[in-house]
Amino acid sequence: MDATTQLTDRSTATQVRAAFRAGHVRPSSGLVPGRTQANLVVLPKDWAFDMLLLAQRNPAPMPLLDVTDPGVVTTEWAPGADLRTDLPMYRIWREGRLVEEVCDASGHWSDDAVAFLIGCSFGFEAALQAAGVPVRNLDQGRNVAMYRTDRPLRAAGRMHGDLVVSMRPVPPELVARATTVSAAVPFAHGAPVHVGDPARLGIADLARPDYGDPTVLEDGDVPVFWPCGVTPQRALEESRPPWAITHAPGHMFVTDMPDGRSPQD
Amino acid sequence: MDATTQLTDRSTATQVRAAFRAGHVRPSSGLVPGRTQANLVVLPKDWAFDMLLLAQRNPAPMPLLDVTDPGVVTTEWAPGADLRTDLPMYRIWREGRLVEEVCDASGHWSDDAVAFLIGCSFGFEAALQAAGVPVRNLDQGRNVAMYRTDRPLRAAGRMHGDLVVSMRPVPPELVARATTVSAAVPFAHGAPVHVGDPARLGIADLARPDYGDPTVLEDGDVPVFWPCGVTPQRALEESRPPWAITHAPGHMFVTDMPDGRSPQD
Repeated sequence: MDATTQLTDRSTATQVRAAFRAGHVRPSSGLVPGRTQANLVVLPKDWAFDMLLLAQRNPAPMPLLDVTDPGVVTTEWAPGADLRTDLPMYRIWREGRLVEEVCDASGHWSDDAVAFLIGCSFGFEAALQAAGVPVRNLDQGRNVAMYRTDRPLRAAGRMHGDLVVSMRPVPPELVARATTVSAAVPFAHGAPVHVGDPARLGIADLARPDYGDPTVLEDGDVPVFWPCGVTPQRALEESRPPWAITHAPGHMFVTDMPDGRSPQD
Repeated sequence: MDATTQLTDRSTATQVRAAFRAGHVRPSSGLVPGRTQANLVVLPKDWAFDMLLLAQRNPAPMPLLDVTDPGVVTTEWAPGADLRTDLPMYRIWREGRLVEEVCDASGHWSDDAVAFLIGCSFGFEAALQAAGVPVRNLDQGRNVAMYRTDRPLRAAGRMHGDLVVSMRPVPPELVARATTVSAAVPFAHGAPVHVGDPARLGIADLARPDYGDPTVLEDGDVPVFWPCGVTPQRALEESRPPWAITHAPGHMFVTDMPDGRSPQD
């Protein structure tokens, strides 16, 4: 498994996907800077309309980069890639319960599977840094802190759930810049959904995120909340489709497309 | 039918819809300035996934404002409205052929009908005028000129077709402003898809539009082309679903929402 040890910050997207296909496992954060990474949700065709409608009705947490035709395992976002094998880690769900994590989802992928590629906040973190806004979770070497909120999604057929947000502490004089910079990349979740008091989102304690690691606020920092790509995983838990496949948190699909690209481009 | 004669430029969206429900027929252009108008496409549930995916893959000509659950005839964009009756004129399609135009679509609306509300260029015409860009078709009192192009959509399942564009002549020094102003309203089709030579889009003669009326270019005007909401009607013709309902061209659904609103707002 030579490919696994060769991954560096200079590896190409093709090399990274080949390593994952060969069995290498690591979070994808930091790999192939400047290339879009994507959340993955795979559902049977029978549920795909509800999922597509859920995303259409809630585009901020679920900005759709691409949706495959049933049974198709490729995407224009990464020519040559196989969606069943080229992510570092997958989660397998049955009736809304997480039952397994695997490196290769081929055995779980049915002929009528529809795959959804959903934008990810890694792209706007790079844009924030480029604009001089510190990204504390990156500076602290931690996964971003994510929280369940009490804000219901607009439901779609059998799919429903509540919004999940990520939180980044921002110095007060940079909140406006963080907002405008992220608003410019709607397919990486876009502008914040909330700035300030976490209790207004139903979040009891910032030090205890529901996913990821807690981020330390520095003096004066304002907590800024963005819609999060974990939202569809929470919706799967609540909506209980017969089966689903997702990426494992932090283990995204690395595409060939530059950050900031939208499906229209 | 008193409602029909009472429509003025000051009528509210509710009054306009009530008049249409009562049987009044007229193009909706100019009614209720500042409120979003929408294209309508209605399909059986069996085809709704393909249509939703077509719009997701081609958001510029088909920016989705709302999609109903099967059988639902209401929308948050116009509380109290009934989508089956509140447009001034509908088209009924069978196997991709236009078979009838009706004022009341109730008799054609099945229990599994899914309605798509699609953004319309009326909103950005108002924004252009507000920004000092003349809109020649409005100044000339004509329907906008629309053309079939040779640019294929990205297909989705059984749904496919080619892009339809609208053309507005713009003075050369205002092309940039027209671009930035329209780009700011992506749910009214957003930025131009093409500026200049119509032949590059496969358009043989600007004086002979495929839909609407020809617009006279003034000296120096550059033809500027925007994605057009007639695109899905062309796709229906080519894709031949068993039945479909659409608005009749120019006879849009008048919503309560301010121009520029997106589904996210």
